[in-house]
Amino acid sequence: MICVLAGGVGAARLLTGLVRVVDPAEVVVVANVGDDVVLHGLHISPDLDTITYTLADQVDPDRGWGLRDESWQAMAMVGRYGGVDWFGLGDRDLGTHLFRTHRLGEGATLSEVTAEITRAWDLGLTLLPVTDDPLRTRVTVVDPDAEREVGFQEWFVQRRHSVPVTGLRMVGDDTARPAPGVLEALIGADAVLVAPSNPLVSIAPLLAVPGVADAVHARRDRTVAVSPIVAGAALKGPADRLMVDLGHEASVVGVARLWHDLAATLVVDDADAGLAEAVREEGVEPVVTATVMRDPDTAAALARTMLGAVGVTV
Amino acid sequence: MICVLAGGVGAARLLTGLVRVVDPAEVVVVANVGDDVVLHGLHISPDLDTITYTLADQVDPDRGWGLRDESWQAMAMVGRYGGVDWFGLGDRDLGTHLFRTHRLGEGATLSEVTAEITRAWDLGLTLLPVTDDPLRTRVTVVDPDAEREVGFQEWFVQRRHSVPVTGLRMVGDDTARPAPGVLEALIGADAVLVAPSNPLVSIAPLLAVPGVADAVHARRDRTVAVSPIVAGAALKGPADRLMVDLGHEASVVGVARLWHDLAATLVVDDADAGLAEAVREEGVEPVVTATVMRDPDTAAALARTMLGAVGVTV
Repeated sequence: MICVLAGGVGAARLLTGLVRVVDPAEVVVVANVGDDVVLHGLHISPDLDTITYTLADQVDPDRGWGLRDESWQAMAMVGRYGGVDWFGLGDRDLGTHLFRTHRLGEGATLSEVTAEITRAWDLGLTLLPVTDDPLRTRVTVVDPDAEREVGFQEWFVQRRHSVPVTGLRMVGDDTARPAPGVLEALIGADAVLVAPSNPLVSIAPLLAVPGVADAVHARRDRTVAVSPIVAGAALKGPADRLMVDLGHEASVVGVARLWHDLAATLVVDDADAGLAEAVREEGVEPVVTATVMRDPDTAAALARTMLGAVGVTV
Repeated sequence: MICVLAGGVGAARLLTGLVRVVDPAEVVVVANVGDDVVLHGLHISPDLDTITYTLADQVDPDRGWGLRDESWQAMAMVGRYGGVDWFGLGDRDLGTHLFRTHRLGEGATLSEVTAEITRAWDLGLTLLPVTDDPLRTRVTVVDPDAEREVGFQEWFVQRRHSVPVTGLRMVGDDTARPAPGVLEALIGADAVLVAPSNPLVSIAPLLAVPGVADAVHARRDRTVAVSPIVAGAALKGPADRLMVDLGHEASVVGVARLWHDLAATLVVDDADAGLAEAVREEGVEPVVTATVMRDPDTAAALARTMLGAVGVTV
């Protein structure tokens, strides 16, 4: 069984490759919920949905999030009323949030609803929110000249992650409990893969749930991460800038430092071959390969390399 | 100033006529919220929306409710998940519910949100929910062989109002307060018009709000109702069957008995001319005219007749 620690877009791409090289029934994905937000009364889980839509081959290929064949009639009406329309919710996408919100209102857990949604798309794998409890990433931004703490999506979407960040905090990390199956998956996995997701706002919230970091650390030798930083830059999103803002080095070496306790092995891109030795000096074994996932085939090759690094041959 | 007591479709049609014969700025509509429902986490106000959409010339002409040029992408997704899809929410319509729910979540009152929505559609008139407090109609149905109390929409939409009803109850009618402007409109109106709405589930909830019935009764001489029952049948909806189920006569005489304390005058259709004397014997002055509103012109003629009955000439 393979356990994957996952954020959104980067993780979704890795998973499209992984399910080509192993039976999806053997895959358990532990996904971030720190980005979740309640908007217009609806519970929105962006990372869970990005993974689901991508694996269902429903993701919009241009945006990388949201659904293909999407329409925007509801948001146009919200805009007419002068309402909050900075968080784009397509009409099809809204159906997912309506269903999730209704089921949560009936008392279902986020895990249960997520299982229902992934079943409807015949994903085959197991997708688990890291916790069923509220866990929310809060971001301290400089906005525009005073510091102010805002919700993750207010930073990421409303401000287009273009303002300096001076702090991050996970609200609920003292009381959140791992969702059913999360610790079991980490403990029982033949390999734990850390997706090329933002270390600070996608992977860190997973580790913030009490018990999860300990479980991953205990499996450090079977854990392989892939760097979301390639040649000093994030392929997508603000990971590079955020790392610098918060005092980290935006490089594979910086990633190795952040994930030292997490993973014995770090896959870095060919572009960073020159930094492999520096990664090793951080106590993390580097594996150099092509990490940019242009399509499911390159994603499958990356997944195969990651599994091979811990002796799982496929 | 003209005050109109309103349910949904029938009231909306009367209003399309009324705003042709008087300045919309002189019209205050007091609308039912007993049909309101929270579904998928969204606050839905069917009667407020039917009035708004109709006056904005946005209502779907075939259905009589909901919006024209509507699409159903969100509900199709809810259906894919096996979710609750018996209450059809179009994509455009959802925008209204998203906005309303968001504003209520911010602490706005239903009156305030309704004003924002009607302003966005340039309605010109004042549309007031009868109360900003929760008031919900509950229906005891025979389902299929045992009595069971359900929410209004579970009876009206989910069961297509096709099951016998043995009771009605307004939850919240002990604590609901009239929304700002409601009593003032009733007290100050030159004429109070009771739309041809269901007496038991559209008009009764208005009167159930403490203070409203007293205010209407005090204006009985200036109040003109139009019968929603024509020739023993409701033009739309289950008013006739519901009246019989609950021990009332489904005729203009039955309506006169129900509304005796409310209105000194009852407009009945030409088809019921033969019952005019029986209406008068109930202590209500009948006015016989064409009441079936086929279009805004016939609605305007009806509105003019109603106003004329209390000496308001237009």
